[in-house]
Amino acid sequence: MIKEETKLQSVSPLTGKQYLIPEKVDDKAGIDEFVAQHPGKKVVVVQGLGFVGSVMALVVANALTEEYAVVGIDLPTPFSYWKIQSINEGVFPVIADDPKIEQFYKRTREKKNFYATCDPYAYSKADVVVVDINLDVKKRSNDNGHLEDYSVDLTPFKKAITAIGTYCKPGVLVLVETTVPPGTTQKVVRPVLEECLQKRGLPADQLKTGHSYERVMPGPKYIDSIQNFYRVFSGTDEASEEAVEKFLRTVIKTDEYPLTKLGNTQATEMAKVLENSYRAMNIAFMVEWSRFAEEAGVDIYEVVNAIRMRPTHKNIMLPGLGVGGYCLTKDPLLASWAKMNLFGSSEPLEQSETGVHINDQMPHFAFQFLQSQYNGPLNGKKVLMLGVSYLNDVGDTRFTPVQGLFERLTDAGCEVTLHDPHVMLWEEKGLRINNDLDELLQQAYDVVIISTGHKEYRNSPKLVSALLSHPGSFIYDTIGVLSNDEIRKLKEKHIVKVIGRGDL
Amino acid sequence: MIKEETKLQSVSPLTGKQYLIPEKVDDKAGIDEFVAQHPGKKVVVVQGLGFVGSVMALVVANALTEEYAVVGIDLPTPFSYWKIQSINEGVFPVIADDPKIEQFYKRTREKKNFYATCDPYAYSKADVVVVDINLDVKKRSNDNGHLEDYSVDLTPFKKAITAIGTYCKPGVLVLVETTVPPGTTQKVVRPVLEECLQKRGLPADQLKTGHSYERVMPGPKYIDSIQNFYRVFSGTDEASEEAVEKFLRTVIKTDEYPLTKLGNTQATEMAKVLENSYRAMNIAFMVEWSRFAEEAGVDIYEVVNAIRMRPTHKNIMLPGLGVGGYCLTKDPLLASWAKMNLFGSSEPLEQSETGVHINDQMPHFAFQFLQSQYNGPLNGKKVLMLGVSYLNDVGDTRFTPVQGLFERLTDAGCEVTLHDPHVMLWEEKGLRINNDLDELLQQAYDVVIISTGHKEYRNSPKLVSALLSHPGSFIYDTIGVLSNDEIRKLKEKHIVKVIGRGDL
Repeated sequence: MIKEETKLQSVSPLTGKQYLIPEKVDDKAGIDEFVAQHPGKKVVVVQGLGFVGSVMALVVANALTEEYAVVGIDLPTPFSYWKIQSINEGVFPVIADDPKIEQFYKRTREKKNFYATCDPYAYSKADVVVVDINLDVKKRSNDNGHLEDYSVDLTPFKKAITAIGTYCKPGVLVLVETTVPPGTTQKVVRPVLEECLQKRGLPADQLKTGHSYERVMPGPKYIDSIQNFYRVFSGTDEASEEAVEKFLRTVIKTDEYPLTKLGNTQATEMAKVLENSYRAMNIAFMVEWSRFAEEAGVDIYEVVNAIRMRPTHKNIMLPGLGVGGYCLTKDPLLASWAKMNLFGSSEPLEQSETGVHINDQMPHFAFQFLQSQYNGPLNGKKVLMLGVSYLNDVGDTRFTPVQGLFERLTDAGCEVTLHDPHVMLWEEKGLRINNDLDELLQQAYDVVIISTGHKEYRNSPKLVSALLSHPGSFIYDTIGVLSNDEIRKLKEKHIVKVIGRGDL
Repeated sequence: MIKEETKLQSVSPLTGKQYLIPEKVDDKAGIDEFVAQHPGKKVVVVQGLGFVGSVMALVVANALTEEYAVVGIDLPTPFSYWKIQSINEGVFPVIADDPKIEQFYKRTREKKNFYATCDPYAYSKADVVVVDINLDVKKRSNDNGHLEDYSVDLTPFKKAITAIGTYCKPGVLVLVETTVPPGTTQKVVRPVLEECLQKRGLPADQLKTGHSYERVMPGPKYIDSIQNFYRVFSGTDEASEEAVEKFLRTVIKTDEYPLTKLGNTQATEMAKVLENSYRAMNIAFMVEWSRFAEEAGVDIYEVVNAIRMRPTHKNIMLPGLGVGGYCLTKDPLLASWAKMNLFGSSEPLEQSETGVHINDQMPHFAFQFLQSQYNGPLNGKKVLMLGVSYLNDVGDTRFTPVQGLFERLTDAGCEVTLHDPHVMLWEEKGLRINNDLDELLQQAYDVVIISTGHKEYRNSPKLVSALLSHPGSFIYDTIGVLSNDEIRKLKEKHIVKVIGRGDL
């Protein structure tokens, strides 16, 4: 997307503004000035300004019982540099349906207590560093979406921790919020920081390190998913535990959402990947059974609704296109990797890995199913895809399973038009998305695919009547959005197929 | 257990009474007499007098809005023949904590509307036949508990359906409650019955066939798990659907627990194996993670409790010794078999099969863990196992995971004493079980294993002080029954290990 020759530029997808990335980073003056404006206040540096860090920084800058001076820090890369500039210029770099985001950001502008930079010198001012960077899993899959191999490379993460250790005060609290392989805070973060301090001739005995994972949910309750939600935390020793708890109490509404302290950092790290693996596995379970239902001519939706009447089975999920997002697509692997590589086990987490396999293959299956049901070749066909993001009513496209289906369609020679009410730019594909459904529906399509369960596509008489005005399409609902009534109506003028609904 | 030369006998484990199995079954007179005593009443024949059928027969004989004459039928085998005799002699063949069982049985004795037989002639009198026989999966595992192969043989099931078809009226309703591979009612039961009627020169167009699975839970709410619980049903055609619904409405409290009709018999059959596979998979998930927790020095119990604070994760389970019981140990395989063998799919239900693999290996892991933690060889050691059944506070030993652990201990040369407050006879092993915990605890043991979470072992100061009176044991809690306080106390005089609690 970003061409070689423009690498020194970073472009805001929100404003289109272009920023030249400086060759040498030196923001000492800016940082010093910002800190000087807030005498007596503790300085919190949030490392990483992505989906989590940028909003975490807002929440800390709007802490409940303390006034912090907050510095957000990220790397001077095309991907991140514009965010830093944007924050300092008055445009928050995340679009979200949550009105609190704008309110919180506005307050930080008034109080002037939120500054962004890419100079690691900021760590030297920090009383607390909150680590919100990514820790990725590299996956290698074959053409069928079958996961053949994966790897976890801790190098970038270690580099980021080293940057903290190179500048930080000896008594800093480093609170890791990143989802890490269990064992990382104890076996990686702490030793790296200690080594850095030692090299600088500083004592390490006042250093405090802990782990407390976020449960951030981009969407209409973005801020609340941090400020008004349960938290689990731990520290590498008693002083660290205390420091973490004290800090969290200032930013989270702990009277309503009490904190839970776990015995060690492995436990909180494990809790995070465990809860995500649990969800990924439960999704995979239904993905697999929806395929069985399809084969057996069973409507899996009515089956699941019948089963949900049992209180013990209320949480059973409905089938979908697999999983998306940054967490559920990789956390089971992160855990399995840690089991074998940080704790020397000879056995992976088989069940959790299997879940990733199944989920990853679902977009491929969805494409195959279309191929098998569509009368004739797909080459040259006009396709409208409704929904790009992986989550209903949210504009998050990270690792969306829609991508796998989209790519197979374009590879097959389809002319694909994309719609999503919440996505302006599909960053991963470098594609602008049309948000105007009415306009798009004025045309006829050979195939209309419902790929995300946004409310704009649910129980919408308008959508149904627009589709009915151009007969002869193949309407393909991959996620069970259409009701029986809608299906009946649409079938009068179209072919309609819903994965896992059996013979309609 | 039953020796070759005594094969013609069937012994009641409840009374010890021995019954000679007749070489030729002829109970026409008995059946005719029973039916004649109930003129105008519909006759319901319940096929199979096991954990489900015997109690289902009681519930039908105590139907809410209709008076039925109920005949229970089973085979003249050593395993079943005594049940038939016992029912007719006034001793209900199932022991249960549910006082309703005795009340319901007493009422059938007063009304004389429940008769048991092994003569298939009974089917000729039936207006409704409820099929409650078993349909087994044969598993082959290696010494590590690793499932190497499994097979489903429909022959015995087909034979039982053929017995119905050989005698039944052309307009009978055959309601399958057995957990069957999805597709069975449509592809096996219906064709077999039609063929039988055809051979007898009878029309098949009045025949009604349906499926409605039970959710029977042996234990204190045994009767309620049939009479006061949600039901899903289906029929092979409209007339069948109606007949099934009408019948169920007479026996189940449908105003409080409404019935759910699904589109076809495949759907209800799938619902049953799906809900059991869901549970088996969720258990396997925690089994696997408890092993990881053990490796990483994490207390998985505190982790799970922390995660459960999230409403979306309330159903996450606690770890255990794997699964037991008749359903969860095989239903995922039954489903996967059907997918490939009845619907021609080339792919198994990978996630669900993996769950069975993991659960099946847990007893082996529990043994290995003991071996690795115990100081010295296990040969000749005195071991007390607390709990034989697979379910807390219930005396059901079918496929209990305790068996795998027990057998490995005895193979290793341990002298194992078993306790269970709810099990008098461990039928599968042919072992009498001591129910007197006080007596057993007067002795010292090298190893005390908690293997079932019965309430007698939970928060019991008596148990703890009895254990403390003989110091120097290895106390091994495989399922997290002991509280932190109890562990602390016990550690003063014993070595204590709990799977998945990390370093205590």
